[in-house]
Amino acid sequence: MSWQNHLRVVLVHARNSLNIGAAARAMLNFGFSSLWLVKPYDVAFRAARSAVGAAEVLEKARVTSDLGEALGEASLIVGTSGVESRSQHHVQRSLPEGSHAIRTHLESRQAALVFGSEKHGLSNRDLSFCDWVVSIPTHENCPSMNLGQAVAVCCYELARHAKPVPALQTPASATAEQRDRIVETLLPILERSGFLRPDARRSQTEKIRRLVSRLRLAPADARMVQAMIRQVHWKLDHP
Amino acid sequence: MSWQNHLRVVLVHARNSLNIGAAARAMLNFGFSSLWLVKPYDVAFRAARSAVGAAEVLEKARVTSDLGEALGEASLIVGTSGVESRSQHHVQRSLPEGSHAIRTHLESRQAALVFGSEKHGLSNRDLSFCDWVVSIPTHENCPSMNLGQAVAVCCYELARHAKPVPALQTPASATAEQRDRIVETLLPILERSGFLRPDARRSQTEKIRRLVSRLRLAPADARMVQAMIRQVHWKLDHP
Repeated sequence: MSWQNHLRVVLVHARNSLNIGAAARAMLNFGFSSLWLVKPYDVAFRAARSAVGAAEVLEKARVTSDLGEALGEASLIVGTSGVESRSQHHVQRSLPEGSHAIRTHLESRQAALVFGSEKHGLSNRDLSFCDWVVSIPTHENCPSMNLGQAVAVCCYELARHAKPVPALQTPASATAEQRDRIVETLLPILERSGFLRPDARRSQTEKIRRLVSRLRLAPADARMVQAMIRQVHWKLDHP
Repeated sequence: MSWQNHLRVVLVHARNSLNIGAAARAMLNFGFSSLWLVKPYDVAFRAARSAVGAAEVLEKARVTSDLGEALGEASLIVGTSGVESRSQHHVQRSLPEGSHAIRTHLESRQAALVFGSEKHGLSNRDLSFCDWVVSIPTHENCPSMNLGQAVAVCCYELARHAKPVPALQTPASATAEQRDRIVETLLPILERSGFLRPDARRSQTEKIRRLVSRLRLAPADARMVQAMIRQVHWKLDHP
């Protein structure tokens, strides 16, 4: 069983079908599938079920009127809140800071992430079920996030710890010989066109050579540049 | 000027008003405000403007039919793509991996983050403007994210590095405008010399644009390359 299956996403009093659908879609995007809805607005839930893109999650979604039931076997319960939260009683952690603890817990045990309604967030009662509260570090001018987007950001942050980051591949670059060939093909063109000034030919040539080195052309790019230059050369010979 | 003001979020061919509104809201949540729309679906944009919660961003949003104009002074241009991207030609980084480079760049210079349409993503032509491509590491069973949520996740990830990140010394590079000028000056020469084939003009143009992006020319080098090309152009006119 993968660690993702250990997470329950719990939406309390969700009112907007688009948000429910968006939350389900985001869960699926990051490999989560267990969605619980506590007292959703009925019409909204029915509408969300008919939405595309998240059918799999919504079909299995469970509805209850009891937050306790929705939390089930979870042994870590984390509420979510805006920056200005009413939860003075709770330890608050920012999402980047708190996610590691949730992720570690999910490795072997169940956890629940609880989201409040679009309008009022989590009530004091809802919060009383929670071990601590996580907040997404939003900007003070616009702290309140859309519910669907908040679920997306939390799921992303948890999945962020999923895979080891792949090593950066540094691309191969053209050999000295290839670079040299470019410079040697380019020089006569620049000479004929008057870009190279007779009195500064040598310093300009060095400048061009340094430029070509700095480009760190990939081998295929070097061939393409070489082909362009040759073609222009041909055109100068055949006006 | 805060680093957030250095970012442009560019939506190409966005079709859905809710997504445009959601993107604007998410930007504001994380302190970003410069939104550009390239050829949006008109009705969608008008509808989005009337949405609540993101008025500030949407009122200042700029509309253009030209991706180049939307990129403006950005000297780092990052495309976004699903996991299975068509951009075999581009360096791909996952979002957690690539965000550090973007964030560092934003400390002192402008960057653009480019999102494609809900249905088709970014075209090859759009991608040819980009330095590299970032992808959100989604689950294989449901890789494609909702546009508004993708913008939210990217903005969150950038703001995650809220404190100034240690400076990676990345050299300055030419702006999108400078690169564009190089391509535009080069094309007629390549056309006249026969390098561009009439039957493949478009794909070759994209190839050349990608090449110029990959070069990551320093501003002074860009001027030098431009000067060379102009001189060759003059010579072709005066055989």
